[in-house]
Amino acid sequence: MTLALPLGSTIGIIGGGQLGRMLSVAASRLGFRCHVYEPGANPPAGQVADQVTTATYDDEAALRTFGQSVDIITYEFENIPTEALDLLQDLAPIHPGRESLRVSQDRLTEKTFLRELGLRTAPFADITDAASLEAALDQIGMPSILKTRRFGYDGKGQARIMTPGDAALALADMQGAPAILEGFVEFSHEVSVIAARSMDGAVAAFDPGENVHSDGILRTTTVPARLTANQRTDAVLIAAKIANALNYVGVMGVELFVTPAGLIVNEIAPRVHNSGHWTQNACTVDQFEQHIRAITGWPLGDGQRHADVVMENLIGDDMDRVLELAKTADCAVHLYGKAEVKPGRKMGHVNHVKRA
Amino acid sequence: MTLALPLGSTIGIIGGGQLGRMLSVAASRLGFRCHVYEPGANPPAGQVADQVTTATYDDEAALRTFGQSVDIITYEFENIPTEALDLLQDLAPIHPGRESLRVSQDRLTEKTFLRELGLRTAPFADITDAASLEAALDQIGMPSILKTRRFGYDGKGQARIMTPGDAALALADMQGAPAILEGFVEFSHEVSVIAARSMDGAVAAFDPGENVHSDGILRTTTVPARLTANQRTDAVLIAAKIANALNYVGVMGVELFVTPAGLIVNEIAPRVHNSGHWTQNACTVDQFEQHIRAITGWPLGDGQRHADVVMENLIGDDMDRVLELAKTADCAVHLYGKAEVKPGRKMGHVNHVKRA
Repeated sequence: MTLALPLGSTIGIIGGGQLGRMLSVAASRLGFRCHVYEPGANPPAGQVADQVTTATYDDEAALRTFGQSVDIITYEFENIPTEALDLLQDLAPIHPGRESLRVSQDRLTEKTFLRELGLRTAPFADITDAASLEAALDQIGMPSILKTRRFGYDGKGQARIMTPGDAALALADMQGAPAILEGFVEFSHEVSVIAARSMDGAVAAFDPGENVHSDGILRTTTVPARLTANQRTDAVLIAAKIANALNYVGVMGVELFVTPAGLIVNEIAPRVHNSGHWTQNACTVDQFEQHIRAITGWPLGDGQRHADVVMENLIGDDMDRVLELAKTADCAVHLYGKAEVKPGRKMGHVNHVKRA
Repeated sequence: MTLALPLGSTIGIIGGGQLGRMLSVAASRLGFRCHVYEPGANPPAGQVADQVTTATYDDEAALRTFGQSVDIITYEFENIPTEALDLLQDLAPIHPGRESLRVSQDRLTEKTFLRELGLRTAPFADITDAASLEAALDQIGMPSILKTRRFGYDGKGQARIMTPGDAALALADMQGAPAILEGFVEFSHEVSVIAARSMDGAVAAFDPGENVHSDGILRTTTVPARLTANQRTDAVLIAAKIANALNYVGVMGVELFVTPAGLIVNEIAPRVHNSGHWTQNACTVDQFEQHIRAITGWPLGDGQRHADVVMENLIGDDMDRVLELAKTADCAVHLYGKAEVKPGRKMGHVNHVKRA
C-alpha cells in the first residue's frame, strides 16, 4: 500500500464553502489538520479548520505561503484558475491531479474525453460564433441548450434554445465566453455515482442515488435509485472507467441520465458532490472521509450502505423548517454555518434515514 | 419549547481536549461556531473550532474576553476552578449549571447527593486525617480505596488499602488533599448510561453500554450491555432521577456497578463521556450533538440505536494498528489530532459496528 501521510499532517483545501467544511471535519476525524484558502470573507469551512487564508486566486504571495504551510492540497470546486494551480503544484502535491481538473473544467474537453472512452453523452458541438451555432442547431436539432464551456454551476451560464429565434439571445447570454451546444436527452430520471480511487488504483463506489433538481439546483437524492441490476452495475463501471482513465485520486461524482437505451453521462465533478451527502448517515465511511482517505494514502472504506435514505437540501427559507425536521426521528440535520439566509442559497441539508 | 439559540451563535467550550473537539464538530453540524478556552498549547479542539484562547483559568482578562465573545458556555471536564466560573457566569449562561458542577467536582458531595436521592452507592466516609481513616477502615472494612475528593480522573489520585499496613502510605499519596474512603463493591460488570436533559425538562437516554477498564482507563464499551430488562429500565431511571434532581441541561454520563442486589451508582460526569463515543456510529444523533441540542434549546434526538457496537479506545501504541483497523469493514476511526503518542494517552477510538 502507498504510505499514508503522517499523523497530524496538514491538508490544504482550496475553497471554503460547505464542501470544504465537511471535508475539514472528516479530515479531523483521521487526525489531520486543514488549512482553507478562500477569497470570500468568513468562509463556512473556516469555522472548523485549523487555519484560514482569505485571499484571491491571483495573490501569489498568499498562494505561496499557503502552499508552503500544507503537506498536500485538495479542493472543493473545479474552477480554480490555472495560474494558481501552476504555482501551487511546485509546493505540494495536488489531489485529484491536474488532468482531472483540466478535463472537468471545460464542458467541451470533458465531453470529448468521455466519447473517446467509449461512453455515451448528449450530442454536442463546439460553438464559437453565430455561424457555428446555426450549423450545430441544424445537426443537433431543437430543443437544445447552449452552455458556457467553463464556470457553470447550479444552472448558471445556460440558455435553452427551443426555436431558431432563440439562438441569437442565447448566444448573447454567453457574453462572448466559449460555449458548447448540447442536444436534449430524453431521460426518465438522473442518477449519480460517488466513486473513490486510491493512489494504488483501488476503486470503491457508493450505491447510485437518484437526483431531483428544481430551478437547476439539486433538491433531493434518494437511495437506492430506481435502476435495474444491470443499470446499477453499468453506473458503477462507468464511474470506475472514468476514474481509471484519469489516474484519479480522490472522490468524484458522475451524473448519469437513465434512458430506455442505457445510461448517458451528463457530467463529472472531480470532488465530493452534493448528491453524495446521504453517505454521512447511511455509511460507516462517508464521501468526505473517503476523499480524505484517498488523498492521504489511507485504505478506502468499503462504501457499504446500511440504510435507505433521502437527502433533502435546505435552500433559503427551508431553514424555517429546521427545528421541526430536528424533531423527526431518524432525520439528521447538517447546517453550513452561513450567516445569511438568501433565496436559492444552500444553507444545509437533512438526511431522512429509512431503516428496514 | 424553549427558544433555540439563534443560528450562527457562538458556543464557548471550556477545555480543548478530544471531548471539546467532538463537541465543536457537532456544534458546527447545527450551524454554531465554537470558541475553545484551554490552558495547554495547541489543543485538539482548536483544530476544529472557530476561535481558540490559550490562557490559564486564573487569567481574568482572558476569561472576560472569552465570556464576552460567546453566547453560552459549556465544558468538557468538571474540574474548572470556582473563581473562573464565578467570573464567567455573569457574562454568559453556563450549561450544565453550577449545581451540577458543585456536586460532581467533589466525590464526597456527589455520594452524599446520590444517597439523599435514595440511590445506592459504595459505602464511603470523609477522611481528614489518620484518625478518621482508621475509624473509617474499621467501619467500611478492607479492601477499600482512598481517593482525593477532587481532581481525580483515569485512576489518578487513588490508592488501594488491602491491609491496615497500607493506610499510612495511602494517606501520604493524597498529599494532604481532602479524601474519601470507599468500600469495595462486589460487582459483575460496569455499565454506563448517557442521558440528556433539555431546558424544558425532557429527558432522553441512550442504551446503556458495558465498560471494561484496564489500569484505570476505559478500554472498551459494548452495546448492548449485559443487563436484564428490569436492570436496563432501572439504569435509565437512575440517570433521569439524577438529571431531574440537578435541574440538569446537557448530556451526562452515569457509571453503574451491576451487582446481584441491583445497580450501584459509581460516579456521575456532568458532560459527554468516553463511554458514549459509540453513539457516533450507531445513532442518528450522537452524544455530542445531543449535548449541543440540549444547551442550545434544540429538540433532543430520540437516542434510538440502529446497530450493536463495540467502542475501543486507541491508547498509546494502539495507534500502530490504526491503518489495519481502517481497512476493516464497518470499523469507524476517530482520531484526536494529538501531536505525540505517549503511553497511556488516549489518541483516538474506533467503533466496531455490528449490523444485524
